[in-house]
Amino acid sequence: MQYPKSLEALIEAFARYPGVGRKTAERYAMHTLTRLTKQDVDQFSEALVQAISAIKPCPVCHHLTDLEQCEICADTHRDSSRIMIVENSKDVFSIEKSGTYKGKYHVLGGALSPIQGVGPDELNLSTLWQRVAEGEVKEVILATSATQEGETTALYLKRVLSSTDLLVTRIGYGVPVGANLEYADDQTLSKAIENRRVF
Amino acid sequence: MQYPKSLEALIEAFARYPGVGRKTAERYAMHTLTRLTKQDVDQFSEALVQAISAIKPCPVCHHLTDLEQCEICADTHRDSSRIMIVENSKDVFSIEKSGTYKGKYHVLGGALSPIQGVGPDELNLSTLWQRVAEGEVKEVILATSATQEGETTALYLKRVLSSTDLLVTRIGYGVPVGANLEYADDQTLSKAIENRRVF
Repeated sequence: MQYPKSLEALIEAFARYPGVGRKTAERYAMHTLTRLTKQDVDQFSEALVQAISAIKPCPVCHHLTDLEQCEICADTHRDSSRIMIVENSKDVFSIEKSGTYKGKYHVLGGALSPIQGVGPDELNLSTLWQRVAEGEVKEVILATSATQEGETTALYLKRVLSSTDLLVTRIGYGVPVGANLEYADDQTLSKAIENRRVF
Repeated sequence: MQYPKSLEALIEAFARYPGVGRKTAERYAMHTLTRLTKQDVDQFSEALVQAISAIKPCPVCHHLTDLEQCEICADTHRDSSRIMIVENSKDVFSIEKSGTYKGKYHVLGGALSPIQGVGPDELNLSTLWQRVAEGEVKEVILATSATQEGETTALYLKRVLSSTDLLVTRIGYGVPVGANLEYADDQTLSKAIENRRVF
């Protein structure tokens, strides 16, 4: 027996999400029909349409925002001499949550990946060169992921920016705070040892 | 920094799903905004509203359907003398996929759970008694889960049905086909040994 058509459509919609296989999508769809109220579902449906239409990338830094320019770019109290470069908007929210950074950001919208066909043209770089050319920036902080792609992207940016007199830094990688050494993987431990400092 | 309001609403909508914590909901919401097309999102939004309005429980067996009466109840080729009792509509789809059962179903909409306050009145039982009373049914197959709640429900139904001359059976529980014994948990192994048969 096939699922009713509208249930199948819902399962397929859920299956478009990362880490959601067919089984999980079925579970979410059944949950929608058997556990949520009509009101919950209407709200969800509305939230989807609202979010996709209201939220756009900031024209300056590409961070997601529902304003003309994102809160961070618009905030004149923030240090415009520093730009932290991250892969995704999600990273901006994470770093902002930590509350330790008071400069600006630039969201690349991904990382270089020759295998997946992501080259420099697929990233938000032209706006970055433009911001750098304006002369206010003194330091570029590379905060791409500690993955192969993130590393490649950091190296690429470092090479391109080496022709300028900008200070190019990379955030520290190592054992997460609060984590037990025995649970850290080899690469994290190598990074941690490599990044050791005088205590 | 707070998430933009419409993004927050979307995160909260995703977080209503089983096994979806705040982090996962954030990931789904970001995926919606950065990886899906406007068309995908519109389809998803539409699928939600469509499904909740088109799909209802079958008035006979409570299985989810977009028809007046579900395909299984409406199918005159199926054996009306057997009713298999399951907890959820999902179970019907699973059993139908296996293709081994040709009788009818009855979906309880849950299982008895004194702890969660689910008593007989919360399950779809009145329609079951009605179907049984009509006299066509000869066998009731209890296919509730192999959990505490499923077991309680099966015992309850067995007790109530013992006053009738219906054959009451329970589906077999044991080591899943294709599974290695060493990965089976103790309770599954106990069940498997208890359910042994002459070979």
